Amino acid sequence: MAAFTPPLLCAQSSIRTSTGTSQLVQISTVTNGVYTAANINNLVKFSSTRKIALQNSRNVSVKPVAASSSAVEGATSKSDSSMPGGEQKTMKVVGVFYKAHEYAKDPKFLGCAENALGLREFLESKGHTYIVTDDKEGDNCELEKHIPDMDILITTPFHPAYMTPERLKKAKNLKLILTAGVGSDHIDLHTAAEKGMTVAEVSGSNVVSVAEDELMRILILLRNFVPAHTQVSEGGWNVAAVAYKAFDLQGKTVGTVGSGRIGLELLKRLKAFDCKLLYYARHSMGEEKEKATGATWESDLDKFLAACDVVSINLPLSDKTRGMFNKEVLNKMKKGAMLVNNARGAIVDVDAVKEACESGQLGGYSGDVWYPQPPPEDHCWRYMPNQAMTPHISGTTIDAQARYAHGVQEMLEQYFSGKPLPEENYIVREGELAGQYQ
Amino acid sequence: MAAFTPPLLCAQSSIRTSTGTSQLVQISTVTNGVYTAANINNLVKFSSTRKIALQNSRNVSVKPVAASSSAVEGATSKSDSSMPGGEQKTMKVVGVFYKAHEYAKDPKFLGCAENALGLREFLESKGHTYIVTDDKEGDNCELEKHIPDMDILITTPFHPAYMTPERLKKAKNLKLILTAGVGSDHIDLHTAAEKGMTVAEVSGSNVVSVAEDELMRILILLRNFVPAHTQVSEGGWNVAAVAYKAFDLQGKTVGTVGSGRIGLELLKRLKAFDCKLLYYARHSMGEEKEKATGATWESDLDKFLAACDVVSINLPLSDKTRGMFNKEVLNKMKKGAMLVNNARGAIVDVDAVKEACESGQLGGYSGDVWYPQPPPEDHCWRYMPNQAMTPHISGTTIDAQARYAHGVQEMLEQYFSGKPLPEENYIVREGELAGQYQ
Repeated sequence: MAAFTPPLLCAQSSIRTSTGTSQLVQISTVTNGVYTAANINNLVKFSSTRKIALQNSRNVSVKPVAASSSAVEGATSKSDSSMPGGEQKTMKVVGVFYKAHEYAKDPKFLGCAENALGLREFLESKGHTYIVTDDKEGDNCELEKHIPDMDILITTPFHPAYMTPERLKKAKNLKLILTAGVGSDHIDLHTAAEKGMTVAEVSGSNVVSVAEDELMRILILLRNFVPAHTQVSEGGWNVAAVAYKAFDLQGKTVGTVGSGRIGLELLKRLKAFDCKLLYYARHSMGEEKEKATGATWESDLDKFLAACDVVSINLPLSDKTRGMFNKEVLNKMKKGAMLVNNARGAIVDVDAVKEACESGQLGGYSGDVWYPQPPPEDHCWRYMPNQAMTPHISGTTIDAQARYAHGVQEMLEQYFSGKPLPEENYIVREGELAGQYQ
Repeated sequence: MAAFTPPLLCAQSSIRTSTGTSQLVQISTVTNGVYTAANINNLVKFSSTRKIALQNSRNVSVKPVAASSSAVEGATSKSDSSMPGGEQKTMKVVGVFYKAHEYAKDPKFLGCAENALGLREFLESKGHTYIVTDDKEGDNCELEKHIPDMDILITTPFHPAYMTPERLKKAKNLKLILTAGVGSDHIDLHTAAEKGMTVAEVSGSNVVSVAEDELMRILILLRNFVPAHTQVSEGGWNVAAVAYKAFDLQGKTVGTVGSGRIGLELLKRLKAFDCKLLYYARHSMGEEKEKATGATWESDLDKFLAACDVVSINLPLSDKTRGMFNKEVLNKMKKGAMLVNNARGAIVDVDAVKEACESGQLGGYSGDVWYPQPPPEDHCWRYMPNQAMTPHISGTTIDAQARYAHGVQEMLEQYFSGKPLPEENYIVREGELAGQYQ
């Protein structure tokens, strides 16, 4: 959408040439990994060279121009930034992201492997190595090659690097694991904690994106949108075949399992729809939030499930929530109720959901989370009736990408200068798991 | 969704046999137009007859049982109800609705031809003839046969009986045309006015249904839902191919063209999404509504279009709005902006919309309204890129059907007893068109 202002991609950044010399450049465009830089400071002798080989062999086309002395000072101080504990050390940073291929030419598309959260110049200007790949599965994948000596891992929930206990044990140098997004269940958090690793995510970076998407899915299921759209796109017209199962959201009972940040944002948006709103959680979210949302606390899951026409799951995947929505739990829902799950695929039992969609116990199931990701081509959710599934997209809008790319860079800056990360971002800190994973 | 209580379909009603005798029956189930009645009053001699031929040849299977005398009195007084102007006259009422076939067995599905808004017993108990059909196009259709002598026509926007000037001129007895729903543009209102006919709709009966559906479509376009869903349903997985064009609603500028009841309900629901909200209208909707929605009035269409990332059309189809969104107007929108139209298909230029979707001038187009309805199998909107179309469903949810069926019955009751209809329902009254159609 041309209407939106693209976030600035490293508008000014320092880079390191193959000789290790620091250079200040003004990045103007990025196309499939080839950076065009419009300005370069005049303190570094540059002769007529038009291409600089970076440490990882990326090419930067530059035009020598005069730069202000203040910009140069900025570049100098940046490249001198201290490492954790005050020591100066170059690190090996590994990023695992989905590939965007032809879509990567859009500089706003920060979250793909090609654009690598826009962190390349930032990291390389500090002398760090930045390896980026989407190849993350199996013993011979690109990720495996770097596990033994990587210092920092950046990954996302959309294309997760599954950091099993085995992988974490092999990762002798790994100190920091950052999730670009929200939800760090792809990492074995107990092992990370035992090994003294820090795990952090960009808390809040995409809660609005996910909550908006959940509301869309609630309406898509209630309105029977998918068969309606398929029908007209295939030349058909049968209003009745849609309408027989199309309902208003107004007046229905809608509940969220979990009332964390995403659940809360969903409830806030549902308020205007004149529904009866419930939330199931261990603790009340308090009078203020209940008033802001009009939602009522239900601490008894069975009662909650029996009351809801639509349920949305908003829980982290943890030892407690894994497989929580099994056949027994699904059978406690109203017959024909709808289930929305943008949380994590493994919170629900795959076969139980499929059977409930087939039997009509579930009127519909919509979510963007699967396990594993990508799911196999024959995953039954792709082909079951009454599904409104998508790939894992809700938290990776262009807007969300800008926020989590920014959040990752901020955390790296803090880490490199030996400062603590934002408190709310910690998932594993000094051997302790964050509350939602305990 | 079995969770919802079905509205009672004529739980107790009087019917007329082929001999004209009134009978009180308890309707228990309705299946494809065959009514099963469990009870019948014992004042009418019934012998062992198990089937009664109704005036319009519908079959009712009945079991004779004793009825209370009060119920019988009710039946007697019902069949004596007075006609407009106090005269007693049986009328020919014609209903045009879409057929539901196998879905008609659900008694909640009131809006289909088979269940006929649940009005059959009500009308026939008063001695009126009730002809119902979905066959509405061409000179030899079922509707045409009844035009010369019908007194009342009931039709819907979902499967509209197009009442052209020619048809209205042939309809010598037609006095009352009721729209089960909102939007009476399928009737040539000027001709109806000239001929002194009354046209009325069930104002408000589905404004919430349509507004909710519009919000769904806004999100579906912004999140690039359709290709995302198609992808996983066909065995694929490509997050980037969706995410490159997926945006949050938060922070975007969303506008409605028209701020009537549907536009207002849409704005109310959008408020919680932290967008910039605009409305284009001839007049300000006033401070109170602006405060309730947070929306700003823009009286200059060009400025409005240039500001919006998403535009939703909420206007009636009238001489002024027909073809309003032509190529010139679409080109005044931001490049890549999204357009949602649940109002009427003929408000936009079909080819201009298709070309804008192809060129990328429109980032997406979603709506449920077409002209004509049903549209031909080769209608270009079915096959253009970036469309999220459906058949005309937004205003015919099961909940909306209950409301507009109830509203039509109420208006018929008023009309039969010579009383005026609810003020807000009139579209043509004593030769005058309602404001929105002038």
